[in-house]
Amino acid sequence: MKVAVLGTGGGGRAHAVRLLELGHEVYVGTRDSQVTLGRTEPDFMGIEPFGQWVADYPGIELMNFDEAAASADFVINGIDGANAVRVLSGIGRHLAGKTLMDYAVPFIYNPEQAHPWPTPWGVMPALDPVDHDSLGERIQRALPQAKVVKACVTQEQETVVHPQAVAGGDHTMFIAGEHEDAKAEVTALLRSYGWRDILDLGPLVSSRGMEMYSHMHSAIQFALGGARFGMKVMR
Amino acid sequence: MKVAVLGTGGGGRAHAVRLLELGHEVYVGTRDSQVTLGRTEPDFMGIEPFGQWVADYPGIELMNFDEAAASADFVINGIDGANAVRVLSGIGRHLAGKTLMDYAVPFIYNPEQAHPWPTPWGVMPALDPVDHDSLGERIQRALPQAKVVKACVTQEQETVVHPQAVAGGDHTMFIAGEHEDAKAEVTALLRSYGWRDILDLGPLVSSRGMEMYSHMHSAIQFALGGARFGMKVMR
Repeated sequence: MKVAVLGTGGGGRAHAVRLLELGHEVYVGTRDSQVTLGRTEPDFMGIEPFGQWVADYPGIELMNFDEAAASADFVINGIDGANAVRVLSGIGRHLAGKTLMDYAVPFIYNPEQAHPWPTPWGVMPALDPVDHDSLGERIQRALPQAKVVKACVTQEQETVVHPQAVAGGDHTMFIAGEHEDAKAEVTALLRSYGWRDILDLGPLVSSRGMEMYSHMHSAIQFALGGARFGMKVMR
Repeated sequence: MKVAVLGTGGGGRAHAVRLLELGHEVYVGTRDSQVTLGRTEPDFMGIEPFGQWVADYPGIELMNFDEAAASADFVINGIDGANAVRVLSGIGRHLAGKTLMDYAVPFIYNPEQAHPWPTPWGVMPALDPVDHDSLGERIQRALPQAKVVKACVTQEQETVVHPQAVAGGDHTMFIAGEHEDAKAEVTALLRSYGWRDILDLGPLVSSRGMEMYSHMHSAIQFALGGARFGMKVMR
């Protein structure tokens, strides 16, 4: 497939490398590719500049968001939750008819909306929207011609692309969306990543639970001292 | 132990029967025991009147909330989330120094706060509080002398009291709270129920994730066509 990964953070990079390994054509999208490639310092999360990182992966092409989306048959949204709806709306014409796999959690890092929590970083970002709406639904409403599938929300993206690295792959991936053909495409991609237990949670309204699970994920991560775990539905 | 189970709904009944089986003295608390015993019709959820139900379990005593709490060493909160803080505050002097295990989710069934969701019942109750606070924390703030332990939130209470009924008991129970001695008491009770994998999520702020998981639980329930499942942390 021709796959666009929108966003240059750690999650997007994990998908890009794995997709390249699996033989796909990979376009990574960013706001301004020249600005992204011009960075020489790690970002506020300590992530290596994209230009240095991508030098190890010939074959991964960096493009502006609109070019990446236009070039691809299948699009992965890795844009942070605070900006995703705005950015995706701006390139909506390139997403029409395409499957858009969205793994974003709508964390708001604005310190005024964060709340105290004994996390390693002292606060926990708030979720917006939460409970009565979800980012996945907002993206679908903003892009009625795209086929949004919420997936890969309840694991680190490193675990998403290498499920065997946790418990031999014996844990559960959840998907949700309104478009059965798009869910079938996402399921095929996830199987190629190595997922065996993929549970379809039905309509996109299930994005609410998937995104709201993020605080549970964090609590488990702090209890275990690391994020390399998965959740399995036992039935 | 002398255990008070506050609330006469299905969850409270599940705990009461199991505690009786395990040899504890069990006091079920309700607002007005005479009113509760006077009911002859199923409630809006279709649950059998308490008086009919309890006839099968000699040994379970029904009392008013304050009497039940005063009589017990260990208290289980099964009062619905919309009323729990108010009711518990009113009997706070009987809870001082005691472990209060709280499994409530703050669902608001008020139709004006519920939102459309393709559930079997057409709407999904909203959560209040959500994200920036939790019911568990509210109860602890309202009752600073009690030792609140949030537990049994992420399963049906029938599964909580009989974990072996799901996947042979191979799934995870989560607890959180500020009081280590109270968490040890809750852990001992849960082990007597049959739990083997009990993960301490640390401080009570983790109640947020546990309560917010409820929408994920519902989505999985609808996907599987039933609530008899558990979640296991795979690491």
